[in-house]
Amino acid sequence: MSALAPVLDRLDADLDASLDRLFSLLRIKSISTDPAFRADCRSAAEWLVADLKTIGFDASVRDTPGHPMVVAHHAGPEGAPHVLFYGHYDVQPVDPLELWHDDPFAPGIKELDGRKVITGRGSSDDKGQLMLFVEACRAWKAVHGGLPCRVTLLFEGEEESGSPSLKPFLEANAAELNADFAMVCDTGMWDGETPAISTALRGLVGEEVVVKAANRDLHSGEFGGAAANPVRILAKVLADIHDETGRVTVPGFYDGVEETPSQVLKSWESLGETAENFLGPIGLSIPAGEKGRSVLELVWARPTAEFNGISGGYTGKGFKTVIAAEAFAKVSFRLVHKQDPAKIREAFRAFVRQRIPADCSVEFHPHGGSPAIQLSYDSPFLTKAKQALSDEWPKPAVMIAMGGSIPIVGDFQTFLGMESLLVGFALSDDRIHSPNEKYDLTSFHKGQRSWARILDALTR
Amino acid sequence: MSALAPVLDRLDADLDASLDRLFSLLRIKSISTDPAFRADCRSAAEWLVADLKTIGFDASVRDTPGHPMVVAHHAGPEGAPHVLFYGHYDVQPVDPLELWHDDPFAPGIKELDGRKVITGRGSSDDKGQLMLFVEACRAWKAVHGGLPCRVTLLFEGEEESGSPSLKPFLEANAAELNADFAMVCDTGMWDGETPAISTALRGLVGEEVVVKAANRDLHSGEFGGAAANPVRILAKVLADIHDETGRVTVPGFYDGVEETPSQVLKSWESLGETAENFLGPIGLSIPAGEKGRSVLELVWARPTAEFNGISGGYTGKGFKTVIAAEAFAKVSFRLVHKQDPAKIREAFRAFVRQRIPADCSVEFHPHGGSPAIQLSYDSPFLTKAKQALSDEWPKPAVMIAMGGSIPIVGDFQTFLGMESLLVGFALSDDRIHSPNEKYDLTSFHKGQRSWARILDALTR
Repeated sequence: MSALAPVLDRLDADLDASLDRLFSLLRIKSISTDPAFRADCRSAAEWLVADLKTIGFDASVRDTPGHPMVVAHHAGPEGAPHVLFYGHYDVQPVDPLELWHDDPFAPGIKELDGRKVITGRGSSDDKGQLMLFVEACRAWKAVHGGLPCRVTLLFEGEEESGSPSLKPFLEANAAELNADFAMVCDTGMWDGETPAISTALRGLVGEEVVVKAANRDLHSGEFGGAAANPVRILAKVLADIHDETGRVTVPGFYDGVEETPSQVLKSWESLGETAENFLGPIGLSIPAGEKGRSVLELVWARPTAEFNGISGGYTGKGFKTVIAAEAFAKVSFRLVHKQDPAKIREAFRAFVRQRIPADCSVEFHPHGGSPAIQLSYDSPFLTKAKQALSDEWPKPAVMIAMGGSIPIVGDFQTFLGMESLLVGFALSDDRIHSPNEKYDLTSFHKGQRSWARILDALTR
Repeated sequence: MSALAPVLDRLDADLDASLDRLFSLLRIKSISTDPAFRADCRSAAEWLVADLKTIGFDASVRDTPGHPMVVAHHAGPEGAPHVLFYGHYDVQPVDPLELWHDDPFAPGIKELDGRKVITGRGSSDDKGQLMLFVEACRAWKAVHGGLPCRVTLLFEGEEESGSPSLKPFLEANAAELNADFAMVCDTGMWDGETPAISTALRGLVGEEVVVKAANRDLHSGEFGGAAANPVRILAKVLADIHDETGRVTVPGFYDGVEETPSQVLKSWESLGETAENFLGPIGLSIPAGEKGRSVLELVWARPTAEFNGISGGYTGKGFKTVIAAEAFAKVSFRLVHKQDPAKIREAFRAFVRQRIPADCSVEFHPHGGSPAIQLSYDSPFLTKAKQALSDEWPKPAVMIAMGGSIPIVGDFQTFLGMESLLVGFALSDDRIHSPNEKYDLTSFHKGQRSWARILDALTR
């Protein structure tokens, strides 16, 4: 009898208890970007350490200038690989709160479109995903008294707020964190039956732009037509960022962007995704990016500029005939291939400055900056994991790319010299970063079993 | 001895008491645009009625579907003119509250740049201005036992929120409100020593534009590059509204706009206003409107499009990589001459709709709509008032125009067939509609004396 079968049985039998543990973690309001939730972030880290100690991990909360890291170690058999598993315990803000059907921090199970789902902020991104691996370890330990591989865990608390402490932490603890390769769980399945391994990730550059005009708010009757209006200036800047064909006009933006090989484009075409399929569920139908490219190419292999937030002037109920003193926008760029985040940030700032009238000013506040990632398609770890996933799910695993950014993958390459294996069980309708985030119960259950299988497969 | 001199003496002697009365009114938070302050608006109306009754006015609070009107009557001598005096007791919102140096609803006197000023929301716009006339009446009554003219007062509570109830009220009460002419106090002086009579006012059309894209907020990694972004759509719409020369591009916008006669332009030039003078105090130096026109022409005689507010996506601290489901802007147009508010509203809506992608939608919420006003330069009332003002102040009164809108002036023409006399004592640094609104104590004192003089002059 294989070592794996009783572990899978154990996971099946322990499902309800594993849900209770996830719910405990989901109840903690670990919103990293908002200083009001600083203590909650620490509570989440402490909760994880306490739980990992019950499995026999040498676990600790590790302070940083921001939110703490969780680091945990567990020995493995001689000759088995050493894996570093990464996840993050922080979550996105929950506004607008009035759009949630359930309290975002009172998790539960409910029926949604015929499926059972776990509700709550972080259920998918990323507390649910990281607990899958913890549960797989717990079952191995319970059944066999140990783990099949040597395992190091790294759980971050600043992933949703630009990871300011991560690089210094990796540098300072490189020896402790080094492993044969990393496993990163912050990714998704192709669909509900088809697991996926992601081999490309877009990078990210974020900038908050604050345009300042008059030294106070003005009456638009008194000054309208004579005084600079920062909302107008900002709108012009943003409107200039895309041309008629959807291309980004910031000079040098496409430096380092390569055309996707036709073979890769063909393999993506074979997935059968259409604009209608992709955009229909969110109520849209027309791809808004560069013309003449498929939606999968747009989100997996093309860079973008997005406007994530804007505010200026009177935004309450009713009307106020004011010309604001200032206005701001939060702008982010998704990067591909060899685009350089630092160069793009500088090019964008110059682009904006050129459009600010001489009697106005602009301030920039940087947020994050990570290049895109391209992983190998055929490492031995990847091949074994692909088979293990295909054994668990109804359909074989596929190789995909990701539109989002997971800066840690680049940091593992840069600071620890490690490749990453990107496996996760989120679904595209999980509403991560939105009201009513959920995680399918099937993802939670079969995801645990998948990680148990992968740990087993890696030892072969 | 003239009838006027003891009235002026009485106003001088009663200044402190008149300040106490103004402070009582300023303490009432009558913000008309925010439903949370509905009861406060009624309180302000009731306060005025109670005060007017002490002077002998037949005064009453008159209900409307919105905030109530105050109407009050006082008889005058046989053969004397009958004047309708208009003001408004509602005020603008006070956000951002943190920029106020003093509580906006705890009025007081302080020293500012060597001048004594009354602080608080509404001190200038319009509670301070309307109380000047009430105090002038109180002094006449105290000294002579009656008023020199027959006086009707109309105080509105919705001036800062589009005056939705005003026209129906004027129509329904036309007989009661009809007078020989109206006096409207919602205007300003040319400078601290030079009183002014305004003979032109810009009109206003306000529109809130809501652009709707996806049916929920999206993760910009997952959907960025494929899904429509309402902030981007809105920025493009706003950026398209002005061309390179500062002209408004909405088709038909300039229909009915006339070039200002060169004689009028010359008289404005003689006032010696420069862009530096006009914009310097607010920290700016470059006129932002149509190129090649003086700042006075821009704010007095040219139409504009202004963006009074914008909001969409994540606007809190930190960053959220979201694509918003919707975004909105509050846009207003200042009108001159014969521009038609209804036509401009429709033209603007068509302009916006043309720029909305087929899978997105747009909603409009109208706010106000009034044409510009051009009054005669040489009516007998105006000539008498001009002399009375010149008698009170260090420099003779001048004829000016106003960049702001006072829709009541058009409504008096339309519904009551009355011309208006526009006299007020606000200064350009009063910060109306902004934090730290103030009213000069000199305006408050000499403004009372000015109205007493005008009432006297009208009887000659």
